[in-house]
Amino acid sequence: MKALNITIIGGGLIGSSWAALFLAHGHTVCVQDLDAHIGPKVRAELRRIQPFMAQLGLALDADTHALRFDTTLASAVQGADVVQECGPERVKFKQQLWAEVEQHCPPTALLLSSSSGIPASMQALQMKTAQRLLVGHPFNPPHLIPLVEVVPGKRTSPEATERARAFYVSLGKQAVVLHKEIPGFVANRIQAAVIRESVSLLKQGVVSAQDLDVAVQTSLGLRWATGGPFLSAHLGGGAGGVKGFLQQFSGGLQLLWLHMRLRPVLLTRRTQAAVAQGVEQAYGAHTIDQLASRRDQQQIAVLQALKPAPPLNPGDS
Amino acid sequence: MKALNITIIGGGLIGSSWAALFLAHGHTVCVQDLDAHIGPKVRAELRRIQPFMAQLGLALDADTHALRFDTTLASAVQGADVVQECGPERVKFKQQLWAEVEQHCPPTALLLSSSSGIPASMQALQMKTAQRLLVGHPFNPPHLIPLVEVVPGKRTSPEATERARAFYVSLGKQAVVLHKEIPGFVANRIQAAVIRESVSLLKQGVVSAQDLDVAVQTSLGLRWATGGPFLSAHLGGGAGGVKGFLQQFSGGLQLLWLHMRLRPVLLTRRTQAAVAQGVEQAYGAHTIDQLASRRDQQQIAVLQALKPAPPLNPGDS
Repeated sequence: MKALNITIIGGGLIGSSWAALFLAHGHTVCVQDLDAHIGPKVRAELRRIQPFMAQLGLALDADTHALRFDTTLASAVQGADVVQECGPERVKFKQQLWAEVEQHCPPTALLLSSSSGIPASMQALQMKTAQRLLVGHPFNPPHLIPLVEVVPGKRTSPEATERARAFYVSLGKQAVVLHKEIPGFVANRIQAAVIRESVSLLKQGVVSAQDLDVAVQTSLGLRWATGGPFLSAHLGGGAGGVKGFLQQFSGGLQLLWLHMRLRPVLLTRRTQAAVAQGVEQAYGAHTIDQLASRRDQQQIAVLQALKPAPPLNPGDS
Repeated sequence: MKALNITIIGGGLIGSSWAALFLAHGHTVCVQDLDAHIGPKVRAELRRIQPFMAQLGLALDADTHALRFDTTLASAVQGADVVQECGPERVKFKQQLWAEVEQHCPPTALLLSSSSGIPASMQALQMKTAQRLLVGHPFNPPHLIPLVEVVPGKRTSPEATERARAFYVSLGKQAVVLHKEIPGFVANRIQAAVIRESVSLLKQGVVSAQDLDVAVQTSLGLRWATGGPFLSAHLGGGAGGVKGFLQQFSGGLQLLWLHMRLRPVLLTRRTQAAVAQGVEQAYGAHTIDQLASRRDQQQIAVLQALKPAPPLNPGDS
């Protein structure tokens, strides 16, 4: 893909991580942020990220001239081929933002929101060119995690969706296109289902937070890192494949779902305190920075281990 | 740990996989099965498994004299230090089995069931020595996946629980002790929650089976292979850790849980057909054997990549 002019709106952690990825792929980046001192912060984050990206074979120069900063939206999006928005998760903010962006950016610019929660249809309510706006939701941190959920709104054109998909694929991402806007999209919904059951098991005193983490990490995590839930079901049915799986396990699954349904989980103050206590018991001996570095390092190791074999028929359908 | 005499009840896939692991750790194994021709089947499975185990540094000789077969329960458990049951998942079968096993095995033998669904308290109903029976539930396949859920019943002694835990740890497993018997234990409950939401998303037409798998594999799978849901929450809250996470995301989680609760999933014949169709569209071009080998190979690659760094404070509490 030819070098693009990309404007990132918001120079926080997600914006900086996108910047690292875009720069490493040879694009020119402008970070728009109201904070006039955002430059050194973003560059410091690039410096922190750089060794991780190097391990994935991506060269990043934190001092590059291909990166500039702007406090003014109008000038920041002038000449942009792509805008990747990473601002606050407030509906009104995004609606006003896009109405202004579309006035100042080239008519061909592709407009992408990193939002995890506000669908493009809602963000675009005040736009005249809603056909070119959609969600490109990364999984944190975007410079490491392959998935980007591409979620068109009701007025998004198929051409914009395809451009977005191809754009993320050109960055080495796994772009998965959703056919409907739904709260939490795919990955965060599945994560929410897991957090729900995890909190429930902790609250019921079945297992400690630490042991639950060990259990998930050393079974399901390992399984899903190499194939999703449907492939796992297909391989859990013996020679009968997914049909064998459904025949054998549908009854048991229905019973478990019922059992879970009868145990609603509410994040009351008391439950939140129990979760916080369990997590601090498990990990309080380490700083967040230590734990996060360890995680990033291990995620890179897993990515490298799986590199020769990408997901089967990656989501290019 | 000194070499043990271990009797495996049932020479199916799980029994054969346990046999491989026990033999590779220098133990003597007797496989009890009513099938008088089980020997060649188990040895053939050992031959299939052997190269995978070799990659994990475990030497296995499929023709070893340390492995014998017996059709008779009474003689099979004579002299056993440990019994690992892998029979059919029927309550009556297991109840009668243990009542007979305890008559013929040494009084010190530790009795373990691989059951994923029938708690030890129920299995032990006809036993006189229920204190030494508990569940040691492996995640399939046991010779590869680290997790074993150790689930004592109401009458199980703390000594037996500790012996079981130490036994599995000596085999290189991650043994997680549950404090309560609950349907599905921990890992299968969490897996069930994920399958439920996956089926729901497929049924609602949000995403194809293949794209859902790609999404999970390239985000949550990668994340959970390196740390469970509680650690992930701790690292998802920025500098505030788990408290920051709860503060920021509790509202959103509650809304997603409500949204899911309002979309019950039933595995009707129609839904099962939709799942089967989606899975076959995604993976039908490959045989189950091809897919399973690929998965095992990738799981080994991930295990090797993470080997220098086991889970933080592994579940030895």
